[in-house]
Amino acid sequence: MPLFLILLIACKKAENTNTDANAKDSTATVATSGVPLPSWNDGALKSDIIAYVTKVTKEGSPDFIPVEHRIATFDNDGTLWAEKPYVQELFAFYRVKKMIEAKPELAQKQPFKAVVEKDKSYFEKGGDKALIELVAATHTGMTVDEFEASAQEFLKEAKYPGKNVPLKQIRYQPQLELLDYLRANGFKTFIVTGGTIELVRAISADFYGIPKEQVVGTSFKYKFDDATNSIKREPALDLFDDKEGKPVGIQLHIGQRPVFACGNEGGAGDLAMLRYSSGSKYPSFQMIVNHNDSIREYNYQEKDNLSLNTAAKYKYHVISMKDDWKKIFPDK
Amino acid sequence: MPLFLILLIACKKAENTNTDANAKDSTATVATSGVPLPSWNDGALKSDIIAYVTKVTKEGSPDFIPVEHRIATFDNDGTLWAEKPYVQELFAFYRVKKMIEAKPELAQKQPFKAVVEKDKSYFEKGGDKALIELVAATHTGMTVDEFEASAQEFLKEAKYPGKNVPLKQIRYQPQLELLDYLRANGFKTFIVTGGTIELVRAISADFYGIPKEQVVGTSFKYKFDDATNSIKREPALDLFDDKEGKPVGIQLHIGQRPVFACGNEGGAGDLAMLRYSSGSKYPSFQMIVNHNDSIREYNYQEKDNLSLNTAAKYKYHVISMKDDWKKIFPDK
Repeated sequence: MPLFLILLIACKKAENTNTDANAKDSTATVATSGVPLPSWNDGALKSDIIAYVTKVTKEGSPDFIPVEHRIATFDNDGTLWAEKPYVQELFAFYRVKKMIEAKPELAQKQPFKAVVEKDKSYFEKGGDKALIELVAATHTGMTVDEFEASAQEFLKEAKYPGKNVPLKQIRYQPQLELLDYLRANGFKTFIVTGGTIELVRAISADFYGIPKEQVVGTSFKYKFDDATNSIKREPALDLFDDKEGKPVGIQLHIGQRPVFACGNEGGAGDLAMLRYSSGSKYPSFQMIVNHNDSIREYNYQEKDNLSLNTAAKYKYHVISMKDDWKKIFPDK
Repeated sequence: MPLFLILLIACKKAENTNTDANAKDSTATVATSGVPLPSWNDGALKSDIIAYVTKVTKEGSPDFIPVEHRIATFDNDGTLWAEKPYVQELFAFYRVKKMIEAKPELAQKQPFKAVVEKDKSYFEKGGDKALIELVAATHTGMTVDEFEASAQEFLKEAKYPGKNVPLKQIRYQPQLELLDYLRANGFKTFIVTGGTIELVRAISADFYGIPKEQVVGTSFKYKFDDATNSIKREPALDLFDDKEGKPVGIQLHIGQRPVFACGNEGGAGDLAMLRYSSGSKYPSFQMIVNHNDSIREYNYQEKDNLSLNTAAKYKYHVISMKDDWKKIFPDK
């Protein structure tokens, strides 16, 4: 079952979640000119990132990576921005609201009724079937143009629950700097998300400087209709781009292993991507965000600790949000 | 049935094909410095291309297209290089040869036997099933790394039948100049091919200056295996990227309509892509290569003339290879 579907239930039994959060880090503005990664605290991890980028971009070095192979992939939810709750989830509820406004009788029909009445038991009892029904009803059965317009409308107004800030302010400032730093060194940056591809494409350029075509994500089946010259989104999953689906999405969209890959612990969704990256014939770098900052962001750990155990096993780098990041969110 | 499968039969009943060809155009080298499109003859089409690019890149003009929406898509076979025969077909036969070398008893088994004995009737009688069997046997059941190594080996040595030139010399020189011209004006160039995605990715950077991730093509299902840290190619089609599959592939990989699209008549495989492009909210440009040059390339027309009729209906531009191109192939 898609991760974002599970999360529509909004009950996270397997996690120990503390949702203390602070939208604005008091360490304030940091000068960015010239010095890389200003919002990263000095320490082993920051040094390792810079040492890696320096060695693989040094022509003539045995570690040199030709520019066309400098592929960097980042998960989105929990890696580039906050995931408590998922923005995808907010969008699904927004769609329900809009659809009921246009057609009030929907409020009496499932699965809309369950959403309106906040009836979690409906989705718990109905399982996959009920959830797929909801996503099919809210995310498909329209053209891609209509979907994009609806996504743009949602994104313009959306505020993040608990923080009451625009979505731009739930991005992680240190990661924005890392994206910039990699690009300045000839890396091509991609998002590889378990979220639906069009929703992330709607913000990728504006939020992260990543063009639509460099977003890999969960996709529904499309069908082209010549008469209306449009593509319809069909209510059937095409690729579920999470866990072992991520290397598949990477191969399909990018066509080669990333040499730099970053995900997060929380749902163990990024381990296969990091593993695939580690098989590159070039020197590679894998990194996992550890959500251990209950003061400035959230603290949530996997019950079985799979992501961090795997990171230890394969020597992936771990970002301690608490210790490695000077600030979490951008000022605006 | 995938187009390249049909072509494995190598019988083109529906077409009137003259295969006179001349590898090297006698008009010789043309200076490229400064002047755009030197291998295009002066005339209405060349003027139209330049006028379009000029108007959509002029800031402040009502026709201006922001750089992130300057997406140009090109078909490959018959649009960027020759398609008589398809390189994909040569590769399938190469794979059969290699596989029999490694395991001689395969020569006694179908579908290998039919290829070795040039038994066209086997594929004609067996229909889709026999052809899918052949492609499954030659293109899948291996990791993507193994497939790429095999493709690279093939491409290094391959000579084009009838011309006996390396594959680089069946590219169309005027199209190489057009790709360069578009890129110099901020367009991002993509290949959208009915051929299999990895085979085209193996040459796209070297042959066309187009990186792997900007190739959209026919794909097989992939499966990630954590134990071996590799992706297996499964013997099942994922997307058949031809005809109405092209807009689907474009939406999945690129995420927006191209404003510039170029295909060719011959198999009517590009009409849906051109139609999708024409629905852009920006000024757009569609173009079809007409293979009407029996002296310098080949002359082949669709029996029902669908591509050229559609071009006339929707006012797509038509490239007369005979009249619009000063030379066809690069010198080396």
